[in-house]
Amino acid sequence: MTGSLDPIDAAMRRAIEASVAARGVSTPNPPVGAVVLDRDGLVAGVGATAAPGGPHAEVVALAQAGERARGGTAVVTLEPCDHTGRTGPCSQALLRAGVVRVVHALGDPNPLAAGGAETLRRAGVEVRSGVLADLAAAGPMRAWLHRQRTGRPMLTWKYAATLDGRTAAPDSTSRWITGEIARAHVHAERARVDAVVVGTGTVLADDPVLTARLPDGSLAAHQPVRVVVGLRDIPAGSRILDDSAPTRIVRTRDPLAVTAALADLTDVVLEGGSTLTGAFLSAGLVDRVTAYIAPVVLGEGPTAVRGTGVGTIAEAMRFRRESVEALGDDLLVQLAPLRSSDH
Amino acid sequence: MTGSLDPIDAAMRRAIEASVAARGVSTPNPPVGAVVLDRDGLVAGVGATAAPGGPHAEVVALAQAGERARGGTAVVTLEPCDHTGRTGPCSQALLRAGVVRVVHALGDPNPLAAGGAETLRRAGVEVRSGVLADLAAAGPMRAWLHRQRTGRPMLTWKYAATLDGRTAAPDSTSRWITGEIARAHVHAERARVDAVVVGTGTVLADDPVLTARLPDGSLAAHQPVRVVVGLRDIPAGSRILDDSAPTRIVRTRDPLAVTAALADLTDVVLEGGSTLTGAFLSAGLVDRVTAYIAPVVLGEGPTAVRGTGVGTIAEAMRFRRESVEALGDDLLVQLAPLRSSDH
Repeated sequence: MTGSLDPIDAAMRRAIEASVAARGVSTPNPPVGAVVLDRDGLVAGVGATAAPGGPHAEVVALAQAGERARGGTAVVTLEPCDHTGRTGPCSQALLRAGVVRVVHALGDPNPLAAGGAETLRRAGVEVRSGVLADLAAAGPMRAWLHRQRTGRPMLTWKYAATLDGRTAAPDSTSRWITGEIARAHVHAERARVDAVVVGTGTVLADDPVLTARLPDGSLAAHQPVRVVVGLRDIPAGSRILDDSAPTRIVRTRDPLAVTAALADLTDVVLEGGSTLTGAFLSAGLVDRVTAYIAPVVLGEGPTAVRGTGVGTIAEAMRFRRESVEALGDDLLVQLAPLRSSDH
Repeated sequence: MTGSLDPIDAAMRRAIEASVAARGVSTPNPPVGAVVLDRDGLVAGVGATAAPGGPHAEVVALAQAGERARGGTAVVTLEPCDHTGRTGPCSQALLRAGVVRVVHALGDPNPLAAGGAETLRRAGVEVRSGVLADLAAAGPMRAWLHRQRTGRPMLTWKYAATLDGRTAAPDSTSRWITGEIARAHVHAERARVDAVVVGTGTVLADDPVLTARLPDGSLAAHQPVRVVVGLRDIPAGSRILDDSAPTRIVRTRDPLAVTAALADLTDVVLEGGSTLTGAFLSAGLVDRVTAYIAPVVLGEGPTAVRGTGVGTIAEAMRFRRESVEALGDDLLVQLAPLRSSDH
């Protein structure tokens, strides 16, 4: 129950924290975090993966450390890459900087980039892998790992509903079911993902703009692609078509076809409506659920999910709770599908 | 953030804990807890109110303490009573036992029973009131205090639903939406309340027996009165009419009339169905919400609440969260209505 006092563990936690800044920015590269410790074990540099074409996390941390890296340790959330893409291989950068030890949480599942650990070992660097691997896998790199493993983006179904599962009143008003803190959380998450998906029905009913906004109402630095799914036309003047963020129209109602159309993305959030959500859930294409539950009862109005085709309790879709936290008056519950392997 | 080390506070916490055993048993008397400390401050006796006609908490604790009460302190969750009902006044029992100090959390709001503190003071006993009063008021005595204040039983709306607010699948199957731990919690709560209320629709659809059962399936020692509300007839063979617990038929659909028919009770739980719940919520007669939220999605099937008449978001019924806890895979969220005075 007590926090680890191991300096390598502490550095890895700091590297994971640093990698949060790379979420949504590094795509298609993984959001990696790195910490460089000097020979005395003191933090000399901290970095996260930059946007594509920019430096990887190790390079950022090494640049910050400068000469203090020599004889030191690099602590990285992912195995340093060994290939020359738009940037040089991180393995070479680490060798040039003179680090004598490299610790990483996860091995690189991408065969193109893997091999960094082996290269470093051959050059005489001590390499330790698997440090806080579960923590790193559940952190900012989760969606990227999911995509490496499955070939699909990680799809998070996000919804906000009342205690009785309503997402709006009968007249379609829903401002506001959740409170300010939960709403700010939604926008902060949007600013860290690659895309936000809604159905044409939601566009026609609510005309949402679906941008990531800061608490003062201004646009966040990173905007997700706005994806409109369905066969119906949406008006040319729809707010989702404005120039505040890119928009992609996907003319299908088939969740598999939608997923294929988003194959270049890593971290995708499904924001509704209820029928589209039902289709994704039925297709087994929801990888994570982010539920904002408000202390409100409506007793009338649309529900969060429809059209799953579930007829009896044995067909219910079951999830396991990953976390629950209070966001002001609301609850944020995060869940993942309960696969048979979880039993 | 640290627990109090004050021995009187500790004794009061223990008295509140002890009073849990009196819930459902002491009605119509308050479920009180008492701890007697000897002259060295050591716990000499612990007690809770017995069933009507039996001893009050103070008398139980004094009997346990015996001669060790002399020169000691009585710590009680409610002001000791001063009237001779079926049992003698506790104030006199405390004086006879020779305690030199009495500490209580709450004053007795019942004018018939009040005055114990004054009697004790006049007899030279040091009396301190208000110790952990908020904690005691939120504890087992809550329903009794509510009834003293409002003249009505405290009505708790209890429901179990999926993430999308469904209480059953379309074919009415609902076993099981929640897990074993949550279901055991429901039964333990039933064994501590005075009545469980359902509508005739629920009886006709589900034929529930509504008893409080132990994990092995046997009946709990205390059973709530089973109350069936509505205008429809229920079959003579309904399980709710069996002899495992008393049953009361209330032939009305008006929540106010139901409340009046239960005026002799203190702690009442509304277990559904959705239309009856909507009527109670609309009438402002729900004093507390106990929500079991399962990590399940159905996407079809009946919802927890219907017929509130809410048309727009401004008419939404809002609550404040009192607690949230994990019960196995499920969440237990307890809430109370957000009155305008809470702002």
